[in-house]
Amino acid sequence: MRHKPSRRKFVATLTKAAGTSMFINTPILTQARHARETPPSFTVGQVMDIILKTIPNAPFPKTVDTLKSGNASQKVTGIVSTMFATIEVIEKTIAAGANFIIAHEPTFYNHADETDWLKNDPVFRHKQELLTKHGIAVWRFHDYWHSHRPDGIWTGMLSALGWEKYVDAQSRGVLTLPATPLHQLITQVKEKLDIKMVRVVGDRAQSCQRVLLLPGAAGGRNQIAAIEQAKPDVVLCGEASEWETPEYIRDARRQGQTISLVVLGHIMSEAAGMAWLVPWLKPQLPNLPISYIPSGNPFTYE
Amino acid sequence: MRHKPSRRKFVATLTKAAGTSMFINTPILTQARHARETPPSFTVGQVMDIILKTIPNAPFPKTVDTLKSGNASQKVTGIVSTMFATIEVIEKTIAAGANFIIAHEPTFYNHADETDWLKNDPVFRHKQELLTKHGIAVWRFHDYWHSHRPDGIWTGMLSALGWEKYVDAQSRGVLTLPATPLHQLITQVKEKLDIKMVRVVGDRAQSCQRVLLLPGAAGGRNQIAAIEQAKPDVVLCGEASEWETPEYIRDARRQGQTISLVVLGHIMSEAAGMAWLVPWLKPQLPNLPISYIPSGNPFTYE
Repeated sequence: MRHKPSRRKFVATLTKAAGTSMFINTPILTQARHARETPPSFTVGQVMDIILKTIPNAPFPKTVDTLKSGNASQKVTGIVSTMFATIEVIEKTIAAGANFIIAHEPTFYNHADETDWLKNDPVFRHKQELLTKHGIAVWRFHDYWHSHRPDGIWTGMLSALGWEKYVDAQSRGVLTLPATPLHQLITQVKEKLDIKMVRVVGDRAQSCQRVLLLPGAAGGRNQIAAIEQAKPDVVLCGEASEWETPEYIRDARRQGQTISLVVLGHIMSEAAGMAWLVPWLKPQLPNLPISYIPSGNPFTYE
Repeated sequence: MRHKPSRRKFVATLTKAAGTSMFINTPILTQARHARETPPSFTVGQVMDIILKTIPNAPFPKTVDTLKSGNASQKVTGIVSTMFATIEVIEKTIAAGANFIIAHEPTFYNHADETDWLKNDPVFRHKQELLTKHGIAVWRFHDYWHSHRPDGIWTGMLSALGWEKYVDAQSRGVLTLPATPLHQLITQVKEKLDIKMVRVVGDRAQSCQRVLLLPGAAGGRNQIAAIEQAKPDVVLCGEASEWETPEYIRDARRQGQTISLVVLGHIMSEAAGMAWLVPWLKPQLPNLPISYIPSGNPFTYE
């Protein structure tokens, strides 16, 4: 974690947002900073509360977004946003002197982060001991970030893709792009999202204009319902069980529909949304180091 | 479906099984054939019963292996085995004059083949109308084939890989191969199973001897439990949700374990097991045309 560059980026974001020129070095502000030499401190619970105040209808009675490690009363030394709190991300968090990881996805290899079945597993035990030894809190931030308006993941992904101008205000998840052959669209998306390989059900020459973007793994029913509604030329999804959406698209194409599916991979289809958490959160937690550590995509392709 | 080659193959299988030389053209047999000019006919239900008699504890009170189309009383004109009853496979079945598809995976894009949520969906309606119009019965054959002893999918896959001699009788799913670098093992498996691309979490130079083969999508908990038990050098699985087994393997490697994961793709990790259904079933249903139609893998890679 590099605090200084992060602070610079925060200042840039703030001044840009306020539509003003640089004002941070004015005498008044310098004086104000001296008046509170100890930066305000926050507990994990206070950070969670500050975030949850921005989410409609939060806290949710039922959600997977619980603390997976640590506790609400511990003082936060620094925050890390990431897709997965992998062992590597935890090690980097410790090295950076931070102790609060906000992760979009599960910590313990199942959606609900149940751990009873893992209690004798060496990988689980090592990870849990590492978290405990270094006092690292991990909060899953999945349901809430998707429930933010606009959806935090969606916003970060649109920004990474540079597709804000193509949003179809009438249809959720739909973008209207200039007509582009599928293989060109794939090249653009791979470059912008730093993806090495995608899986495709479709025709690489097909012209694509109406794009349905479904980051993550929404599940077959949700993906198919969104396809029925949006009638896109191409669906870009993060992940799909092979017996669900990919087979639906294969059958739709055999029926004569002009539609293709591109499976981007789960992590890179959402990562920019967790990177976007940092500039969004910084103004709400002055002086607290906040950074994004990419967990990256674990796959290579042979 | 080509009936004549199928029958020839059936005779070859039968004579081979009986350990005799060709006897089909002896006068006695010729006479016997004249005595029953109409070959014995079977209903869908009778075929199902013949198969279920070979499966321990069948029929199961709870299973996804139900008729998805057609009914038990219809006369079978021919049987097709496949991984997925795609629209293309259904069309090929109709063209071959067959009317009973035995498919390993769901017909309607969800594990339980629930269809209420699809009732206005154009792809579902087209598929269902095609099945109804041509009187095609579809039976899912998943739980039962895996419950056959030996597991029908496992047997067909071992045969396709030529790995029967490597089976570890003590550990289910484990094979002990001559030590091979992972990238060489991948090349061999891709060639034998006709796979274009695999996804890997691991080190392509790693030496692999103890291989855990998990065709299909067993689910994260089952896969991880099997890994805990088998302690393999490499896991070859069909499909895995990205937040489950792939992240477990990533963390295991960071912890220092020497283990890799190869995601083969669901269909090609099981297809040989449905091809193997044909020679297994033919001796039990004399004179009934039975063939394998590959649904193939729908993905291309960009």
